[in-house]
Amino acid sequence: MIEFKVLKKSLKSNARLGVLKTPHGEVETPCFVPVATQATIKTLSSDEIVSAGSQMVISNTFHLHLKPGEKLIKSHGGIHKFANIKVPMMTDSGGFQVFSLGFGRDHGVSKVEKTKPEEIIKKGSQPKLLKITDDGVEFTSYVDGSKIFMGPKESIKIQESIGADIILAFDECTAPTATEEYTAESLLKTHRWADICIKTKKTDQALYGIVQGGKYRNLRVESAKFMASRPFDGFGIGGEFGGDKSQMVKMIRWVTEELPENKPRHLLGIGYLEDMEKIIKAGVDTFDCTVPTHYARHGNAFTSKGKIDLTKTKYLKGKISKEPLDPECDCFVCRDHTKGYLAHLVRAHEITGLSLLSFHNVHYFNRYVGEIRKKIKKGLI
Amino acid sequence: MIEFKVLKKSLKSNARLGVLKTPHGEVETPCFVPVATQATIKTLSSDEIVSAGSQMVISNTFHLHLKPGEKLIKSHGGIHKFANIKVPMMTDSGGFQVFSLGFGRDHGVSKVEKTKPEEIIKKGSQPKLLKITDDGVEFTSYVDGSKIFMGPKESIKIQESIGADIILAFDECTAPTATEEYTAESLLKTHRWADICIKTKKTDQALYGIVQGGKYRNLRVESAKFMASRPFDGFGIGGEFGGDKSQMVKMIRWVTEELPENKPRHLLGIGYLEDMEKIIKAGVDTFDCTVPTHYARHGNAFTSKGKIDLTKTKYLKGKISKEPLDPECDCFVCRDHTKGYLAHLVRAHEITGLSLLSFHNVHYFNRYVGEIRKKIKKGLI
Repeated sequence: MIEFKVLKKSLKSNARLGVLKTPHGEVETPCFVPVATQATIKTLSSDEIVSAGSQMVISNTFHLHLKPGEKLIKSHGGIHKFANIKVPMMTDSGGFQVFSLGFGRDHGVSKVEKTKPEEIIKKGSQPKLLKITDDGVEFTSYVDGSKIFMGPKESIKIQESIGADIILAFDECTAPTATEEYTAESLLKTHRWADICIKTKKTDQALYGIVQGGKYRNLRVESAKFMASRPFDGFGIGGEFGGDKSQMVKMIRWVTEELPENKPRHLLGIGYLEDMEKIIKAGVDTFDCTVPTHYARHGNAFTSKGKIDLTKTKYLKGKISKEPLDPECDCFVCRDHTKGYLAHLVRAHEITGLSLLSFHNVHYFNRYVGEIRKKIKKGLI
Repeated sequence: MIEFKVLKKSLKSNARLGVLKTPHGEVETPCFVPVATQATIKTLSSDEIVSAGSQMVISNTFHLHLKPGEKLIKSHGGIHKFANIKVPMMTDSGGFQVFSLGFGRDHGVSKVEKTKPEEIIKKGSQPKLLKITDDGVEFTSYVDGSKIFMGPKESIKIQESIGADIILAFDECTAPTATEEYTAESLLKTHRWADICIKTKKTDQALYGIVQGGKYRNLRVESAKFMASRPFDGFGIGGEFGGDKSQMVKMIRWVTEELPENKPRHLLGIGYLEDMEKIIKAGVDTFDCTVPTHYARHGNAFTSKGKIDLTKTKYLKGKISKEPLDPECDCFVCRDHTKGYLAHLVRAHEITGLSLLSFHNVHYFNRYVGEIRKKIKKGLI
């Protein structure tokens, strides 16, 4: 059960300021949703999730189903108790991960990537590593090699056991290389599955329908209208965004303009810093992205002066070594440590270094969106 | 500059209760000294070092010299400021690491290991990977392949730049497989180096002399008497302890009984839980050991019911999965998390799991020694 209220609509763009009430607290939107794939934000403790300013996190149904299994999570009283997470939570339906094992792996493509003509996915194609049927997907567990079937019913039941505040409908996430014909056929399935998800769900968790349709305007609009016509509590915008980022904002707007204004919209798996203001101006309320923790684990920190790579030796010498990561940041890492010490930890392969950078980056992303909220409030964007 | 005061001497053993005053605070002894090899306790933040109850930590001169170099540390104002460490600190002289690169690596031996007859180190032997001379050791940096020379002068100068409260004299740490003749000759060198360390040191850091002598009683007693005759602020007990642990306590007592009562004694690199009470009863005041963090990174937790291995699937099921790691522990990991969740993190290779276990284990070791202090206070041991 969630309640969403739009507090202010921008006059300059589709941006909105809102508040999303969930059983585990309120979320100010627009909001960055850090990824806690396996029931933790990588390297952070549950207290640090909160102190890094995270308002909501998203865990992953596919991974949690395989490890440790939703039974254990349910037996603990749901994911909040299992992981001691104190902020509202979402779970992804598992669709993206399941399909990534298929065409995504076959063709080495991700959500935003250029089409290579030789890898076009045509109607009737099947990926190598999994079997897509009308009812779902059969794949092999990477944990124990067992055969697993996941479709809309299975996904909803698993998500009910996990027990996040917001759950997502199971969809086929089409690859950037899919033809219009393939995408149209896939969309029919995604829509049929959406209705099965609505019918299957027995809990009072909020359920979001996922808009797909690839890079095809007619399909995106059709999908948004379909989802808007169903009794969903909110909407996810999934799939690929046009082969390159310049198309992304335009494509998001095709969708948001068809969706009801009084329900929240979540953009799945997109949230580079340089994208944030754009996607928010396109009418997105929440969005998730692994960038802050992923980059941290590779020694990179986001700062008000740009991204810095602490694997470089220049941070070990002279004046720069004594500077904080970001003089404008008020997180404990910037308060307590210098670039020199952090670069030392990174170069010495100390886990502490990765944890400190992860904390800073998540804090930075959360603060960054906070600044965008202020801009909307002030009528600047 | 340190000040050491014995507050109580046991009537039942050589155990003593004391307080060690340093420029960065007071340490209640006996005290476990967690290892912060590269200027961090592995996986912990500097605040967590304190909240895990650590009273003092020990960093490593050899590793810090190679990475990031003492110059950077000095330019930050010393290791406390460099690493934002808020408790008193020691540095190891680097002797053990340098010599581990030699015979230790050649023969695959550590401090406590059975002698293999075919690997006896005789007088005049030289290890393969380094060159031991009268003035020190020449070895190759594992960081950049450069040739590095380290002897007593070099070690003291590096330790002065690092700036810990307590620094250690540079010694040759003989391997368990060294003959008496080799050990006797090595000891002369260690003693000569001790005098060079005293003469070299210009700061008011406390300097400990290191007692060596291998498993040979005459040499241990000779070494202890030699160190006791010099103006050291305290003493380290180094080297090997007799090929097996049953000999260890006896050998420590040979040494402590020769050392002045009013100065602190640090046992180097020993501190399994099952050893602690024994070494304390043998008259040791402080001791360092990597066990809590090392085991944590392999998924093991120390608890009042024994060591548990969270890589096992049994922690993912039933009643046991819902128990805290240790119901008798008051650390935040035991307060916030279950065995099931921690086992999930460990099995899912989440760094968060290793950090949480490291915190718990360090906290557990610190608390364990706290209980031993209470026993001495009550006259029980």
